[in-house]
Amino acid sequence: MVEDIAARVQRLEDIEAIRNLIASYGPLADNGDAQAVAALWCENGVYAIGGMGEARGRAAIAALINGPVHQQLMTDGCAHLLGPVAITLDGDRAIATGHSIVFRHKVSGFEVHRVSANRWALLRMVDGWKVERRDNQVLDGHNAARALLGLT
Amino acid sequence: MVEDIAARVQRLEDIEAIRNLIASYGPLADNGDAQAVAALWCENGVYAIGGMGEARGRAAIAALINGPVHQQLMTDGCAHLLGPVAITLDGDRAIATGHSIVFRHKVSGFEVHRVSANRWALLRMVDGWKVERRDNQVLDGHNAARALLGLT
Amino acid sequence: MVEDIAARVQRLEDIEAIRNLIASYGPLADNGDAQAVAALWCENGVYAIGGMGEARGRAAIAALINGPVHQQLMTDGCAHLLGPVAITLDGDRAIATGHSIVFRHKVSGFEVHRVSANRWALLRMVDGWKVERRDNQVLDGHNAARALLGLT
Repeated sequence: MVEDIAARVQRLEDIEAIRNLIASYGPLADNGDAQAVAALWCENGVYAIGGMGEARGRAAIAALINGPVHQQLMTDGCAHLLGPVAITLDGDRAIATGHSIVFRHKVSGFEVHRVSANRWALLRMVDGWKVERRDNQVLDGHNAARALLGLT
Repeated sequence: MVEDIAARVQRLEDIEAIRNLIASYGPLADNGDAQAVAALWCENGVYAIGGMGEARGRAAIAALINGPVHQQLMTDGCAHLLGPVAITLDGDRAIATGHSIVFRHKVSGFEVHRVSANRWALLRMVDGWKVERRDNQVLDGHNAARALLGLT
Repeated sequence: MVEDIAARVQRLEDIEAIRNLIASYGPLADNGDAQAVAALWCENGVYAIGGMGEARGRAAIAALINGPVHQQLMTDGCAHLLGPVAITLDGDRAIATGHSIVFRHKVSGFEVHRVSANRWALLRMVDGWKVERRDNQVLDGHNAARALLGLT
């Protein structure tokens, strides 16, 4: 029975670690901490942004944060709000599904700059859960974005 | 002590299941998966939407997703963002309280289409936690919406 | 091993309690329950809002909810959406970091009224986790807001 409970606690800890990882993305990105954002991914992890290509590997992901598009957002004032995720855990792998909303400050107030579907594929590594691949697609009516929102 | 811990783990698992269920609603709805949305509810569960009446039973809830209002939202591009919920657990019943925001894509960009209060009454069934009743009311200053946001 | 597991369960319960506390803020605030909002803080807790000064102690925090700015928001229709938080737990203390978005109803529809960075410092008290200090700064491009989003 103790072994049983240990396995159940491990499952809860896994889900907790994944939820915390994803909840960390927005604050780290809006703070411009490129290295910490990149460290959420595996060494060779992928961040695929619909219409903007793929960033592969931590250096490429850090470059997104340090790049002109993200830096201009930070200068204007922005929030990358990542909503709650639905998590499907399968041993050392997991899928997490949810929305992200980018708010941008303008002279006239805040605008909803981008609304996206996200599918995160995660792996348990020696040093904890990491992102193997994040797919992000803007929810503008295209099928590709909707397809990311299946839960498995 | 082991029995004690087992009960504490069960409580955490219950909360986790409820949180994951509610986090699943938005992705499933925005993907148009009417059957999977309906399966979040009990057989005779109710989805009561202020100003739009009640859908009672899974067929009626699936019909909301397959109906013209939701399908037009999906064609335009939409996100049903369900915020974090506060959960009060009481044995085989629970109440979860939180906001939902519907973002809609327009030619001019994204608009905040609907902002609502939600109160979820949940039941533990043989096959896991299900929604007995979801009440949703738009937060436009009416008392009925505010009243949903009491936590019990 | 049982002691080990008990400590792991305690950690999960602590995180769960903190997450639930923060998820309670928005519903309680939008329902105008000033006493319940204030009770989320320690007796001498602080709610520091960039550009609007500090509320110190429960009476001062309740006064924010009962004050004219918040009451007008409720009359118009509002949602204080607090996004998921990243939580760093350290014994009887914790830091939680995340965004808050205030939506406001207008004749023309909903607007994004305020987008902020939040850093919550929490303490374990005899009667559970309480907020020692919440710092909130609007994300309009100023460094002070971004600085709140470091995770520790």
